[in-house]
Amino acid sequence: MQDKINRQVILTSRPSDIPQADNFSIDTSDIPTITEGEVLVRNIYLSVEPAMRGWVSAVANYSEPVPLGGVMRALTVGKVIESRHPDYGVGDIVTGMFGWQDYAAVDGDKVQRRVETNGLPISTALGILGINGVTAYFGLMDIGQPKQGETVVVSTAAGAVGSCVGQLAKLQGCQTVGITGGPEKVALCHEAFQYDHAIDYRSEDVDAALTTACPNGVDVYFDNTCGPISDAVMKHINVGARIVLCGTASITNWDPIPMGPRVQRQLLVKRARMQGFLVFDYNDRYGEAISALTPLIKADKLRYREDVLEGIDQAPDAIASLYRGDNLGKRLIRIANESE
Amino acid sequence: MQDKINRQVILTSRPSDIPQADNFSIDTSDIPTITEGEVLVRNIYLSVEPAMRGWVSAVANYSEPVPLGGVMRALTVGKVIESRHPDYGVGDIVTGMFGWQDYAAVDGDKVQRRVETNGLPISTALGILGINGVTAYFGLMDIGQPKQGETVVVSTAAGAVGSCVGQLAKLQGCQTVGITGGPEKVALCHEAFQYDHAIDYRSEDVDAALTTACPNGVDVYFDNTCGPISDAVMKHINVGARIVLCGTASITNWDPIPMGPRVQRQLLVKRARMQGFLVFDYNDRYGEAISALTPLIKADKLRYREDVLEGIDQAPDAIASLYRGDNLGKRLIRIANESE
Repeated sequence: MQDKINRQVILTSRPSDIPQADNFSIDTSDIPTITEGEVLVRNIYLSVEPAMRGWVSAVANYSEPVPLGGVMRALTVGKVIESRHPDYGVGDIVTGMFGWQDYAAVDGDKVQRRVETNGLPISTALGILGINGVTAYFGLMDIGQPKQGETVVVSTAAGAVGSCVGQLAKLQGCQTVGITGGPEKVALCHEAFQYDHAIDYRSEDVDAALTTACPNGVDVYFDNTCGPISDAVMKHINVGARIVLCGTASITNWDPIPMGPRVQRQLLVKRARMQGFLVFDYNDRYGEAISALTPLIKADKLRYREDVLEGIDQAPDAIASLYRGDNLGKRLIRIANESE
Repeated sequence: MQDKINRQVILTSRPSDIPQADNFSIDTSDIPTITEGEVLVRNIYLSVEPAMRGWVSAVANYSEPVPLGGVMRALTVGKVIESRHPDYGVGDIVTGMFGWQDYAAVDGDKVQRRVETNGLPISTALGILGINGVTAYFGLMDIGQPKQGETVVVSTAAGAVGSCVGQLAKLQGCQTVGITGGPEKVALCHEAFQYDHAIDYRSEDVDAALTTACPNGVDVYFDNTCGPISDAVMKHINVGARIVLCGTASITNWDPIPMGPRVQRQLLVKRARMQGFLVFDYNDRYGEAISALTPLIKADKLRYREDVLEGIDQAPDAIASLYRGDNLGKRLIRIANESE
């Protein structure tokens, strides 16, 4: 390995809102040496998340901001190529917060989990069987608590989380309504993700479209957007509605906090609940979600899409590209072959 | 009774925001005749609620608006003076939605309950042992779910609901912080209602005062105000906070919906919950709350204040007066003597 180098994507400046390519540089360094208790991971897929905007923001958040000059924080899946930890052996596929880099020296106790592929591609560990599927599963089931016959509305409905939410709600016997942007994603919502209705917020009046799509009102709203789309959905909530706050993709800057229609009276009159949700609070329950999702995927009852960029050079622009809506499916970056 | 008349407070015009005296008139009519299944109630105390603003509003709400030309909807406590219902006899003290009027012919099945005074004044049936105490009890215990050692913040802290919430939270072993307006109410919060801290929003910077009063952040916020006070509290919520939406006293007009800082990101980052609450959903559980509250009152562990106006002529201005903050304690109107 002496002839190999570690390419790392470094945060060089703090964006004012959505991280752009020029907020990062790609540096090279030596492959790290591991010490007792660590494993050396060769990253294969890097994940790209909407939440990364928050991870690089200096505004108060649920985690410390990525430091300037530091490797970009990211979930990855990779292969153990050297181990000084009793639980992991060379060749194991593992996933965790190993960063946007080729190689990571990782405390074995910080490995999120060993990936059991069950015949599915290892990339699923970053999407439908990773943060996105687990987010969808617990966000919908624990916070949204859908009941058979209810109407569930999902924003960013064709996205990695939203598409899973819509399908899980459908499997619960709910009417599902997806809100997404552009005809290609509307088609995906209908054909791949089996929504009963799909609304194109770019070409339709969302409020009017919801009146048609939700004649019985909205019981669960899985909100990945905030902003005007959510303001429209709020007008349609039923008594006892549950609003799952999972993301705020429509709002590019939270400092200062943007203004919007006050939600309190509608929540009060409807005795409704709006609740924030972070998948990291469910770290101890990943297995439960994965056990529920895996057989659904294998039976083709739960579908997913991946949108894979090739090479670490794609990383710096990858978050901005996500916010431009360029991707169809879970955005990943492949930086090595599994068989390497 | 032939020589008696029934004075009734009639809604004559719909207010654009807070109902004023000139939205009502006082008419007289004959005392109604009851039919089989009805009781004739002589009202003794009329209740005045902040929620009455909503009851006369044409804007969509949780109940049908009071019709123009109709008797103002109100909770009252009174005496059965004639009965054609097997469950009620002459002399029974009863409470229910009998309206701002001297006499009401009431379907016996619409009587909310027979008041067992347990040695306490019958006026308590409209306050601490009525809608206010029951609102405080279920709003705090069911929705707020305070745990020992947590910090509970209450807005309109000296009011009929807020003062009960603060004391119940204190009895749960919580740190309690009341927000109220003016030195007289601040003194009430400290002396009568045993808040650990009381903040005067009229003379203090609420945000700064909360920093001092809540060094460990806010776990439960019982919100009767909405508006700038609540915006300040939101900055201080802890991970897992519960925000009970009980009233929106700071907002005088909801049509169109006023703008405020968007709450979604703070709720998301803090995995917090904002939930609307209406006491009418707990009609079947009144007894549970009253059984819990009565011994606390008798043991002087739970204090209440009443602010009693004399005579039905006071009714038309009574709601506006409430919003001006004129009252210290539960606002009632006495229109007859109990012994009459």
